[in-house]
Amino acid sequence: MTLQANIQAALDGKAKPLGSLGRIEALAVQLGTIQNTLRPLVNPAVLVFAGDHGAAPGVSAYPSSVTAAMVGAYLAGGAAVNLFAQQAGARLLVVDAGVAADLPAHPGLVPAKVRPGTRDWRTSPAMTAAELDQALHAAAAAVDRLAGEGCTVLALGEMGIGNTASAALLAHKVAGLDLAALTGRGAGLDDAGLAGKAAAMASGAARTAVRLPPRDALTEYGGYEIAMLAGAILRAAECRVCVLVDGVIVTAAAIVAHAMRRDCLTACVFAHRSAEPGHDLMLAHLGAAPLLDLGMRLGEGTGAALAIPLLRAAAAVLSDMANLRDLVA
Amino acid sequence: MTLQANIQAALDGKAKPLGSLGRIEALAVQLGTIQNTLRPLVNPAVLVFAGDHGAAPGVSAYPSSVTAAMVGAYLAGGAAVNLFAQQAGARLLVVDAGVAADLPAHPGLVPAKVRPGTRDWRTSPAMTAAELDQALHAAAAAVDRLAGEGCTVLALGEMGIGNTASAALLAHKVAGLDLAALTGRGAGLDDAGLAGKAAAMASGAARTAVRLPPRDALTEYGGYEIAMLAGAILRAAECRVCVLVDGVIVTAAAIVAHAMRRDCLTACVFAHRSAEPGHDLMLAHLGAAPLLDLGMRLGEGTGAALAIPLLRAAAAVLSDMANLRDLVA
Repeated sequence: MTLQANIQAALDGKAKPLGSLGRIEALAVQLGTIQNTLRPLVNPAVLVFAGDHGAAPGVSAYPSSVTAAMVGAYLAGGAAVNLFAQQAGARLLVVDAGVAADLPAHPGLVPAKVRPGTRDWRTSPAMTAAELDQALHAAAAAVDRLAGEGCTVLALGEMGIGNTASAALLAHKVAGLDLAALTGRGAGLDDAGLAGKAAAMASGAARTAVRLPPRDALTEYGGYEIAMLAGAILRAAECRVCVLVDGVIVTAAAIVAHAMRRDCLTACVFAHRSAEPGHDLMLAHLGAAPLLDLGMRLGEGTGAALAIPLLRAAAAVLSDMANLRDLVA
Repeated sequence: MTLQANIQAALDGKAKPLGSLGRIEALAVQLGTIQNTLRPLVNPAVLVFAGDHGAAPGVSAYPSSVTAAMVGAYLAGGAAVNLFAQQAGARLLVVDAGVAADLPAHPGLVPAKVRPGTRDWRTSPAMTAAELDQALHAAAAAVDRLAGEGCTVLALGEMGIGNTASAALLAHKVAGLDLAALTGRGAGLDDAGLAGKAAAMASGAARTAVRLPPRDALTEYGGYEIAMLAGAILRAAECRVCVLVDGVIVTAAAIVAHAMRRDCLTACVFAHRSAEPGHDLMLAHLGAAPLLDLGMRLGEGTGAALAIPLLRAAAAVLSDMANLRDLVA
C-alpha cells in the first residue's frame, strides 16, 4: 500500500462513520503525505514578508510608509496576525524583503532587504534578475532556518502597500487570467481610485508580452515580498514543510511558484477565500478550495493563521483518535 | 450610541482597513452584544447530550448500543470531539439525557437520564409532557452549572443512534420543511436502508397533524437529547451565554427553541454546515450561515468545537488589537 492508502485506512479505522470528518480527513492525508508519516506533527510558524512597491502611489489608497508602520505593529505584537498566531500557538517572524524604510533590528525581524522598494512597474521592470535571485535565496534561507528549528507548518503572510496590483499583474501574465477581473479595491480605494488603479495596471501590463514566464513576470512586476513568498513555497515543498497559503497575494505567489515547479502545490493548503475580487479566479487556476471563507481581505497571514487549528485537528485525528476496534472490544 | 454601535466603532478604529476582517468582525459584535461588553471573554465548554431512540431499529445503520459505546469513548477522551475540545481549550461534559444503558458514574458525566430511550415514534409519542419538562429543566440546570463556573461559550453536541430521523421530523413538523428533502443517510445507511428510513419517517409523520407546536413536536418525535439541546439553547440565551450550534441535530433543536422563543437565536452562532442533506434547508429557515463548511457529518459537537478558535479570534480583535491612532502616533 502507498502511504496515502495507509493513512486513509488508518482514518477509516477510527471510531466514526466512514468519511464523516470530511475535509479534516483529506487534510490528515495531505499532512501525513507531506511529512511522510502516519503521525504528522503541527509545529507552526507564521512568516510575514514585507516589501514596498515603486508603483504604489498610482494603485493604493495608502502611502508606502504604512508598510513600515504595520511591520512595527507586527513586531510590537498588536496586529491581527499576532493575535491569531498567538492563539494558534505559532511563533511569528517578519522578513524585511524590501521595505522602503530603515527598520531597527528586532528579534522578530529577519533583515533581508533587497532594496527599499521595487522600481515602478508602470515605466520599467520592478527588479533585476539578480535581485530576484537574491530574494529567492533569502526566502529559502528563512525557510531552512525555521525547518531546522522544527517548524513543520509554515503559514505565509505579507504586507506591502500596492501589492494587490502586483499580485494581479503576476496572475494575469503567468496564468493568463483576465486583468480587469483581478482588479480590486485592495485596502480601500474609492471608485476614482479604483479606476486609476485599473488604468495604471492596464498601462503597466501593456509594457510587456501578453504572457510571461514566471521569473520574467516577477522581475517585471515584483514585488520583493511576493518573490520571497514564491521562493518560500518552493523551498518549503522541498523540505516537506506544509505551507498554509493566505489570501490574494500569497495565492499569486503560489501561481508563480507552481509555474516554476508544478509539484510544489502538494505541500500547499489553501487557508482562506479572500473577499478581494479575483481570488476565486486564481484559486480555480490552481484547482484549490480554501478551508475557510470568512469574508476577510486583510492579508498579513490572518487567514493562514486562522486555519492552523484545522491542521492541528487533522493531525490529532490521525494520531490520537480512538479506533473502532478498541471501542467495540 | 447602542452597545452594538460602540463595538462597531471600536472595530473600525483598529489597525486595519474598514471591515477587512469580515465575519470575524461580525462575530465580535455578536459576542460583545451577547455578553453586553466591549471586552468579551471566551471561556468555552463543550456539552454533549446523549440519548437513545425507540425508533432507531427502523431508521439507523447502527444498533442503539453504539450510543453508550460512544459515550464511553467521550468519557475516555479518545473521540474526535475530545481532541477538538482539548485543542480549543474547552472542557467537555457528557449529559446522559436518555441512553438505553446503565452508565457508571464518571466526573465527566452528568446523570440526567429521563428514561432509557424514547418510545418508538413510529407507533406512539416518543415521550410524555412530564418527561419533556424534566428534560428541559435538566438542560437548564446543566447550563446554569456551567455558567456559574464562568463558562461564556457553550458548544453543543449530541450522540444518539437514530437521531437524524428525529431531527428531520422536528424540522418538518415545526418549520414545515419538506420531509423527503430532510432525509439522509445519517451515520451510513445504504440505499435499501435509506428507503426504509424514509418510509418509517413518512409513516411516523402521518400519525400527527401536518404542523405541530414545538412542545408537541418534541413529545411526539423526541429525543430526550434533542429536547435538552433545545432547553440548553433557551437557558443559555437567558444567561447571556453564547451557543455554538453544531450540525443537523443541534440545528433542529435550535428550530424548536426558536419556535418557543424567537429571540434565543441572538445567542446562537452557527458553527458548521453539515454534509447531511437537509441542513441547508434548516439553516435557511433560521436565516443562519455557518462559519465553517468542511463537509463533516459526524455530530458529537465536532463542528462546534472547531469553531471555538474563531470566537477566540473575534474576542481578541475587539479586546487586544492595536488601534490605528496608536499606530500612526
